[in-house]
Amino acid sequence: MKKNVIVGQSGGPTAVINASLYGVVYEALNREDTCGTVYGMINGIEGFLNDRLMDMKPLDCSGELELIKTTPGSYLGSCRYKLPEDLNDSVYPELFEKFEKYHIGYFFYIGGNDSMDTVSKLSRYAEKIGSDIRFTGIPKTIDNDLVCTDHTPGFGSAAKYVASTVREIAADASVYDNKQSVTIVEIMGRHAGWLTAASALARKFKGDNPVLIYLPEVAFDQEAFIRKVKNALETTPNLVVCISEGINDGSGTFICELASDVGVDTFGHKMLTGSGKYLENLVKERLGVKVRSIELNVCQRCSSVMLAGTDQKEAIASGAYGVKSAIEGATGKMVAFRRASEIAPDADYVLDYTLEDVSKICNKEKTVPLDWICSQGSDVTQDFIAYARPLIQGAVKIPTEGGLPKFSYRK
Amino acid sequence: MKKNVIVGQSGGPTAVINASLYGVVYEALNREDTCGTVYGMINGIEGFLNDRLMDMKPLDCSGELELIKTTPGSYLGSCRYKLPEDLNDSVYPELFEKFEKYHIGYFFYIGGNDSMDTVSKLSRYAEKIGSDIRFTGIPKTIDNDLVCTDHTPGFGSAAKYVASTVREIAADASVYDNKQSVTIVEIMGRHAGWLTAASALARKFKGDNPVLIYLPEVAFDQEAFIRKVKNALETTPNLVVCISEGINDGSGTFICELASDVGVDTFGHKMLTGSGKYLENLVKERLGVKVRSIELNVCQRCSSVMLAGTDQKEAIASGAYGVKSAIEGATGKMVAFRRASEIAPDADYVLDYTLEDVSKICNKEKTVPLDWICSQGSDVTQDFIAYARPLIQGAVKIPTEGGLPKFSYRK
Repeated sequence: MKKNVIVGQSGGPTAVINASLYGVVYEALNREDTCGTVYGMINGIEGFLNDRLMDMKPLDCSGELELIKTTPGSYLGSCRYKLPEDLNDSVYPELFEKFEKYHIGYFFYIGGNDSMDTVSKLSRYAEKIGSDIRFTGIPKTIDNDLVCTDHTPGFGSAAKYVASTVREIAADASVYDNKQSVTIVEIMGRHAGWLTAASALARKFKGDNPVLIYLPEVAFDQEAFIRKVKNALETTPNLVVCISEGINDGSGTFICELASDVGVDTFGHKMLTGSGKYLENLVKERLGVKVRSIELNVCQRCSSVMLAGTDQKEAIASGAYGVKSAIEGATGKMVAFRRASEIAPDADYVLDYTLEDVSKICNKEKTVPLDWICSQGSDVTQDFIAYARPLIQGAVKIPTEGGLPKFSYRK
Repeated sequence: MKKNVIVGQSGGPTAVINASLYGVVYEALNREDTCGTVYGMINGIEGFLNDRLMDMKPLDCSGELELIKTTPGSYLGSCRYKLPEDLNDSVYPELFEKFEKYHIGYFFYIGGNDSMDTVSKLSRYAEKIGSDIRFTGIPKTIDNDLVCTDHTPGFGSAAKYVASTVREIAADASVYDNKQSVTIVEIMGRHAGWLTAASALARKFKGDNPVLIYLPEVAFDQEAFIRKVKNALETTPNLVVCISEGINDGSGTFICELASDVGVDTFGHKMLTGSGKYLENLVKERLGVKVRSIELNVCQRCSSVMLAGTDQKEAIASGAYGVKSAIEGATGKMVAFRRASEIAPDADYVLDYTLEDVSKICNKEKTVPLDWICSQGSDVTQDFIAYARPLIQGAVKIPTEGGLPKFSYRK
């Protein structure tokens, strides 16, 4: 008997979270023998609880589905709704009644570790009540911090954006090379430094900017930082430094928190300052050189022009693989990536898709291995470069209208 | 008799200032009958005073010149050096002795209104001493604020970056459309709002984000702003507002200055805050909604991925036209653009190149005409859209290496 399919997106958007949505919807629509209506839930599980869902098939007929593949942001909308730990909570029967109401047989949730927590709880509750609905997690995060997978869809495009933007910022910063300057670029990543590490890809030659790279995995020492900046300026007068927003003192205090009690605004509120701004002031004070700090902000996760072909392809494939696996009977699983090739500069990159228990993944964070961090915490190794380089490859042709990227949106 | 050529870049970089450099160098190298050695001055007139110059021909032979066309930043380096007003100052004979030493017959300076001031002074001094060296200005600025020209090279690509990035930010901001939020995007432009106005191009449909756009040309009223934000949230729960960094109260005080006396950092220094950050706090305080401010920062002027084909073509052509005109005898001129077509939504865009007296251009600023600003200063008209749309057209293929844009740099 045919069962209906429902898919949702959760957490922060990425450049390819819609490519994963495309993968799920396209594959499910092509499994007419098994899959009935393919629903999208609007604003994730939170919207589903309010019966906010849409039929995805018309998008395929209108050609809109094709456009979703290159549209950043979450087409279906997102939520940050955490299901209760207690499986006896009344929300569970409420949800499963709704699943029954819409004849759902397959549930797909595209997201990071919080979303995997949702998949884990729903699949455990299903087991408890003997429901045969299959729950599958499709990985997504620019932070690349999910365990049990080589990397996550969204990271490659974000890494490509970071590397390319830092290369451009370095070109811009170098124009007054007769005068010393420091440019500090603050990159997303509270606990895992993967995206900041990707700034190393920006280098055009050995010793090129960014000369210094700081991740949250290693305790940040302000005095050592100042010494390194001073030394680096001797050989690189227009110095670019990349830092994770989450750099910290190693005992739980973010560097940005050192500044947060400093100023109050006109309304008496604390002025929260980023780590970049804090270090800008520190370098200005201690070295007296021209300093600028730049926060890459949400553009890191929503830039379509830097879509990596590899990332988009893998995002689509992970959605399709999820559908295939669920139809074959899998539940309580997340689609995971296994690199079948060696991590080496000239290795041909080969990726396999597999499944991992979603309960092993949720609520955990994978950080950058310490042996991929070098120079006393101010650089990353060639092993990291060899790991990350294949993930940013490939260009994607973005449809345009009026000279700008054309995006899909819910009407 | 053949004379040598010298070209320099000055002021802040753009995405196409190197395309203009390419235009000058390529054209001069192809005028072997008239032009001898083609020199580039390193760090503008300031570097030239220290004999820092390079022969450009080897770049053509090595293929590097081709790569310069798509490289952001100023290949030759820049300076912010203002020549003295007094033409009797000793720097003038010093410069002209150097021109003689290098057998310079043609001088090209790529830059904004400060650079045109340099061209004006040098050409006036030449007239005074009877020198036949020809001085030509090649326009450049993302601010689009030069008078006597329809627009300036650099604006089109920056406008395309702004429009495309704001469209992406709007997609990103819309994912929690079940909750109200305000995103404030701060765009470059201290006195002229051209680039901020270009954010209107981001709209996909009538009423789309950015719903509110504020330029420095109209006095900014904080109370009216709060009222408009409140109203706009009723129909657009995830509101995007674009503001110029230079929005001001109409009597000389920048909005960002209202916040600048607020906090001091750990070193006792005033924490300078941008206008976006100031309005973020204002909206949070007054409306209690989620607010985020984003500063587009230097990426506006150095992004190669958003190179507009039209902009690049015109930048190259303006460099070449400058060389042609100087050889024909022009001096003390800037290359200017005349739009030969109507400013209308469906008009075929046609551009003519011409010359204007550089003295009429330097030290002046062209702001957005008030009749292109509407909704009591919170939007721009369709006339502006019709003016700006042709300038962002066309894609440029950027050479890549290792998955990233490949840039040229001085070795």
